[in-house]
Amino acid sequence: MDAISVIRTKRDRGELSDEQIDWVIDAYTRGEVADEQMSALAMAILLNGMNRSEIARWTAAMIASGERMDFSSLSRPTADKHSTGGVGDKITLPLAPLVAACGAAVPQLSGRGLGHTGGTLDKLESIPGWRALLSNEEMLSVLDGTGAVICAAGDGLAPADKKLYALRDVTGTVEAIPLIASSIMSKKIAEGTGSLVLDVKVGTGAFMKTLDDARELARTMVGLGTDSGVRTVALLTDMSTPLGLTAGNALEVRESVEVLAGGGPADVVELTLALAREMLDAAGLKDADPAKALADGSAMDVWRRMIAAQGGDPDAELPVARERHVVNAPASGVLTRLDAYGIGVAAWRLGAGRARKEDPVQAGAGVELHARPGDRVTEGQPLLTLHTDTPDRFDYALQAVEGSYDVAPEGTEFTATPVVLERIA
Amino acid sequence: MDAISVIRTKRDRGELSDEQIDWVIDAYTRGEVADEQMSALAMAILLNGMNRSEIARWTAAMIASGERMDFSSLSRPTADKHSTGGVGDKITLPLAPLVAACGAAVPQLSGRGLGHTGGTLDKLESIPGWRALLSNEEMLSVLDGTGAVICAAGDGLAPADKKLYALRDVTGTVEAIPLIASSIMSKKIAEGTGSLVLDVKVGTGAFMKTLDDARELARTMVGLGTDSGVRTVALLTDMSTPLGLTAGNALEVRESVEVLAGGGPADVVELTLALAREMLDAAGLKDADPAKALADGSAMDVWRRMIAAQGGDPDAELPVARERHVVNAPASGVLTRLDAYGIGVAAWRLGAGRARKEDPVQAGAGVELHARPGDRVTEGQPLLTLHTDTPDRFDYALQAVEGSYDVAPEGTEFTATPVVLERIA
Repeated sequence: MDAISVIRTKRDRGELSDEQIDWVIDAYTRGEVADEQMSALAMAILLNGMNRSEIARWTAAMIASGERMDFSSLSRPTADKHSTGGVGDKITLPLAPLVAACGAAVPQLSGRGLGHTGGTLDKLESIPGWRALLSNEEMLSVLDGTGAVICAAGDGLAPADKKLYALRDVTGTVEAIPLIASSIMSKKIAEGTGSLVLDVKVGTGAFMKTLDDARELARTMVGLGTDSGVRTVALLTDMSTPLGLTAGNALEVRESVEVLAGGGPADVVELTLALAREMLDAAGLKDADPAKALADGSAMDVWRRMIAAQGGDPDAELPVARERHVVNAPASGVLTRLDAYGIGVAAWRLGAGRARKEDPVQAGAGVELHARPGDRVTEGQPLLTLHTDTPDRFDYALQAVEGSYDVAPEGTEFTATPVVLERIA
Repeated sequence: MDAISVIRTKRDRGELSDEQIDWVIDAYTRGEVADEQMSALAMAILLNGMNRSEIARWTAAMIASGERMDFSSLSRPTADKHSTGGVGDKITLPLAPLVAACGAAVPQLSGRGLGHTGGTLDKLESIPGWRALLSNEEMLSVLDGTGAVICAAGDGLAPADKKLYALRDVTGTVEAIPLIASSIMSKKIAEGTGSLVLDVKVGTGAFMKTLDDARELARTMVGLGTDSGVRTVALLTDMSTPLGLTAGNALEVRESVEVLAGGGPADVVELTLALAREMLDAAGLKDADPAKALADGSAMDVWRRMIAAQGGDPDAELPVARERHVVNAPASGVLTRLDAYGIGVAAWRLGAGRARKEDPVQAGAGVELHARPGDRVTEGQPLLTLHTDTPDRFDYALQAVEGSYDVAPEGTEFTATPVVLERIA
């Protein structure tokens, strides 16, 4: 077996054999297959594709490169959620305690933000004292004690994926559906969850810009999960507009706490409940009532215990950015568009996100929205507030905001895009 | 400018801009673009292609990465030949002195063999004392004094190509026509020849297995040469059968000397004369008579002076392999097939070629043919003789010979494949 023959097979539109896939993933993880060989293979996969059985084997080989976790000691059924990433996507924060409050165990291994989409761990780290890094034992203990845990994935889970993801990031080979699907699912399957709900974002602020691409990715992942014995469902959800009224770390924690307190923006509540219902269904808890758990404070109770169990103070003041800049509505009328990508890039440039993996983020930075598409606005009223500790970033952020919204004359017809576009099971 | 955006452009079937090409070749040569980025780009080029203007710019950028030679001080017009490589392809050896004898200057920068195709320098190095490595001054002096020189290309010529070729070799990206064409032509244009004849081989023993691929490669290279002011012509020639009756280093030198002495196998003489006529035409020497220069000994005179000028003894005994193994005809009848690839692999395994760049070759090793397709053979007569210094290689070489020839019953109709298949100008 050698790297060149594996590359040639895929380059010439052939099907990779199980032996070729097992060998190339293992040899790459060990350093025997060089980065320049794996990147040529990744490009061939991006351009020539992989069929369902190749993707399944590729995923299995990545799982086999590391350890597998085991939640069988828990008394509750496990349910996990994965989002492909969006702007203002704080859903994990209210969702994990909510589903735990309804009887499931929610082991939420999360990531950090890169580029214009935020990361769940970055958001939670704005809570004073909160720790993302737990040992496997600590993680199980938080999960067992509170019903939910949100923490960083350990290095032992699918190390082949970790190495391959870093390579794809610098070689223009991120956007390959087979590689995206196997990257996500190898970690989720290795993690050992019994059920999984995928939130596949579609639109300008998402990885997948079209419904067709999102559908293909969702189907591929649902197939991989199901074939591995994980009950898997996907919702395709809109990401042409930011979720809720905030994009930024502490800003989004604040909004999440509002949702847990029974308030919060309607779209965040709607998506949180839709995903909660899917997770509870998949976990076999069909009689649970997540709307009630939001209303009666039981989800908030789990949130407070979960944050405290990881060293965080749920009552602490959240950081606030030192400087603000308000963008006013240029005219009176109806806000017909507020582009997720533009707002995401602005929040990123203000300091909420990072350009390189090793960069720090600002806890208080981000964008606050004062209106959402469909809302009436008056000329000169605040439309957005930009937050940052480093005001020299305002100009660069304002360039991203420029052209990201449209105000149409009063009376213009406006049709709202639904939050959930499709369900794939 | 960054590597990822260049990769994405080609990955998404876009056209690379002049600026992108200039930047990526320069940055790769300097080490700023990493090997894993260039290999992803090479795979995208292999699968998505480049148009004529992209290939021209890519070639120009590779030329610009190094020095250019200048033959304008010579009193004769320059003519060069390049072969894409085959089995038993010793044509450069008689051709260079022949064309010089007819009045052109022939600067023949040649390579070594890798894989089953032999290298001109390896062949000439079987002549005791002969040196492949000349300084630019020595090269010009041999060329000026004898009319021809066959030597190694210096490191200064198209260093980007050198680095890229080594990368393509280990990443399954050799077989990209735009990259093959620009690799060959960047060196030939940088070398500064006034005219160039390309011998593009087609068949089992060649890089290009089909006439369509060979035609596309030839057209691309002729276009590149013409656009750079080099009078360029290509002949597509057959490589389904080895050229002549020998494949191996000293064996091929001996056959070349026979041709220069006015004898030698008909196909070698035919191809040598066809290429000589094209070179002389392209150099503006339309009245030259290469057949006469072979017959009257003037080509042999140039050969002897050229070999001597590079330290070789044209009268020295050539090395002979220590061991022989004869393969006999399995039946009486007509030899209808003698496969170039099988014979090439056998010669390689016997020690005539190398598996890695740093391996030595055996001067005496190779395969001698006692019949060619179309010849009548008698059961038990010698068909092939294998030569090597290391007889433990016979078994492995015989595996390659197995199945490489067919003997059909007496009277079977046989149509010979022409030596020259097509001319592209």
